[in-house]
Amino acid sequence: MVAQHSGVSPQTVSNALNSPDLLAPETLERVRRSIEKLDYRPHQAARSLRTKSSRLIGFEIQLTAFGVFGPVMANFLHALSESANEAGYGILLFAAPAGGEEETDRYAELLRERSVDAFILTNTYRGDRRPGLLRKRGIPFVAFGRWSARDMEDWVDVDGAHGTAAAVDHLAGLGHRKIAFLGWPRGSGVGDDRERGWREAMLRHQLSVRGLRVSATDDVDAARKAVEGLFPAGVTAVVAASDALALGCYRALRDSSRMPGRDVAVVGFDDSAAARLHSPDLSSVRQPLREAGRSCVQLLLARINEPLREPEQILLRPELIVRKSAASVIANRPARPGI
Amino acid sequence: MVAQHSGVSPQTVSNALNSPDLLAPETLERVRRSIEKLDYRPHQAARSLRTKSSRLIGFEIQLTAFGVFGPVMANFLHALSESANEAGYGILLFAAPAGGEEETDRYAELLRERSVDAFILTNTYRGDRRPGLLRKRGIPFVAFGRWSARDMEDWVDVDGAHGTAAAVDHLAGLGHRKIAFLGWPRGSGVGDDRERGWREAMLRHQLSVRGLRVSATDDVDAARKAVEGLFPAGVTAVVAASDALALGCYRALRDSSRMPGRDVAVVGFDDSAAARLHSPDLSSVRQPLREAGRSCVQLLLARINEPLREPEQILLRPELIVRKSAASVIANRPARPGI
Repeated sequence: MVAQHSGVSPQTVSNALNSPDLLAPETLERVRRSIEKLDYRPHQAARSLRTKSSRLIGFEIQLTAFGVFGPVMANFLHALSESANEAGYGILLFAAPAGGEEETDRYAELLRERSVDAFILTNTYRGDRRPGLLRKRGIPFVAFGRWSARDMEDWVDVDGAHGTAAAVDHLAGLGHRKIAFLGWPRGSGVGDDRERGWREAMLRHQLSVRGLRVSATDDVDAARKAVEGLFPAGVTAVVAASDALALGCYRALRDSSRMPGRDVAVVGFDDSAAARLHSPDLSSVRQPLREAGRSCVQLLLARINEPLREPEQILLRPELIVRKSAASVIANRPARPGI
Repeated sequence: MVAQHSGVSPQTVSNALNSPDLLAPETLERVRRSIEKLDYRPHQAARSLRTKSSRLIGFEIQLTAFGVFGPVMANFLHALSESANEAGYGILLFAAPAGGEEETDRYAELLRERSVDAFILTNTYRGDRRPGLLRKRGIPFVAFGRWSARDMEDWVDVDGAHGTAAAVDHLAGLGHRKIAFLGWPRGSGVGDDRERGWREAMLRHQLSVRGLRVSATDDVDAARKAVEGLFPAGVTAVVAASDALALGCYRALRDSSRMPGRDVAVVGFDDSAAARLHSPDLSSVRQPLREAGRSCVQLLLARINEPLREPEQILLRPELIVRKSAASVIANRPARPGI
């Protein structure tokens, strides 16, 4: 229909869509006007067979991730879908058995049967088989999370260290000196990064970190036990690696008749729904997840369009949201700062 | 390759895949063995052009929904993907401007360009244009949520009234008589259903509901204000339409030096992550969202395979999770029940 309308051959219309450089500008313009007038959209299945592109981006939904990621995942997924859709791509959501060969088999199946053009990977880890498979097949991918990524890869991540450092800066400004860090057991990229931000900021403020680092699994009760010794030792503020850990801190404070926000300042991480539901409201570090979703699609499209471009990495800054749990000047502030 | 291997024509192979009834059983068996031996999988784009089926199920991700649905959506989406994948279908995630013509245009575009086979709709509402469009085009869909569905449609929902009734049964069993309901403003299908469960259970236990129904928007602070008058009036238990409302109740209790779980029992709804992070742990009604995801796919596949079948509806029962906020026998239990 488009060919007839613009008085060219069907091959010329196909070239206009897929290799516009091959046409004379005036011919291209004529075909474009006809396409617009007829509201012609090539059917994706027909285009897939011709161009071997499905315009699908694969995204594996994982249940294991939801401890950390769950409550806020919706924002990420919505931004991802919106950005992909704007560029004419769809997000193909799929489940796979996490880890091991069965997982990579699933990726291979999607490449074979659906010609998925590219993937966005979350929760990559050391020993993850997925990046290797995709590299071998020359399939573009972007990792959200940089801990298993190589320098030669595209990734998007949130600067966790910046978030915990911002918390320390804020607390030091309120007069706190003994600022503890409540993290997860060492060994996770995300957790170690958040600890590093605290440690470096403490040094910058010339504050000692000795005895101020405690850890627990991401569980309220484990966190409660991990921090209870800190308060008799004079700790007046706690920066936690997650909101769940921070709320364990609330419990320990209440158990010892201390009041979060008044007697001891508490800052969490992730700004989950739970943070705002607590009393006092929990201060927390908010990750820019909509921006992260958009950035993942942006890097992926750049890679699809230019497979040999330099790898690009985007590190986004999180934002400290100050609420009542860390809003007031320290109660037992020493007469002279630093003492 | 398959045709050569099994000594039949390519058309016969195509029939074996798409219209197996046309073949003699022994021929079908021969082709099947070859397919298995060669590990042949038809490419989806080729199959789409032939059968006009993309084996894609569309799912619109909405941000508006996340107040209620967000924290637990991950479970629903994972179950949806897993069930669809097992049946050879993919979930196409997409964003659309909520409501109005732009939204239905997006659905029409996905039908035109991607030949999406079917849709799962969430957050349907009275006046929703999507079901009408899909009915007109003869596109199978299943609604998760029954409030705008017609009797002639397939839907899956969770029996909210059963959940709040279970909460009343439990509280009445502990000796509570003045059990209030803290709901949203009237007019939402979901909210009114949860209220109905409370009301009917109260009547069943021969308890008065007079003055025991209060409402607030889904916000901790609005909820706190809505309930503060209840406790001086002798209310000893509150059933809330959401966890956020229930946690507003915690605030009101603390403000008046009452202790949730000891002085007044509180039950929420949704069993969000926040429920377990609070002290005392919040009792809450848990929706079976994995089962809901699986049921949506099950109904959709049945409809795709048999377009003229009777409409089917699946109403799932939620489960009351009893935690410390509603675990103990009422403190000021009257000497004789009913007084």
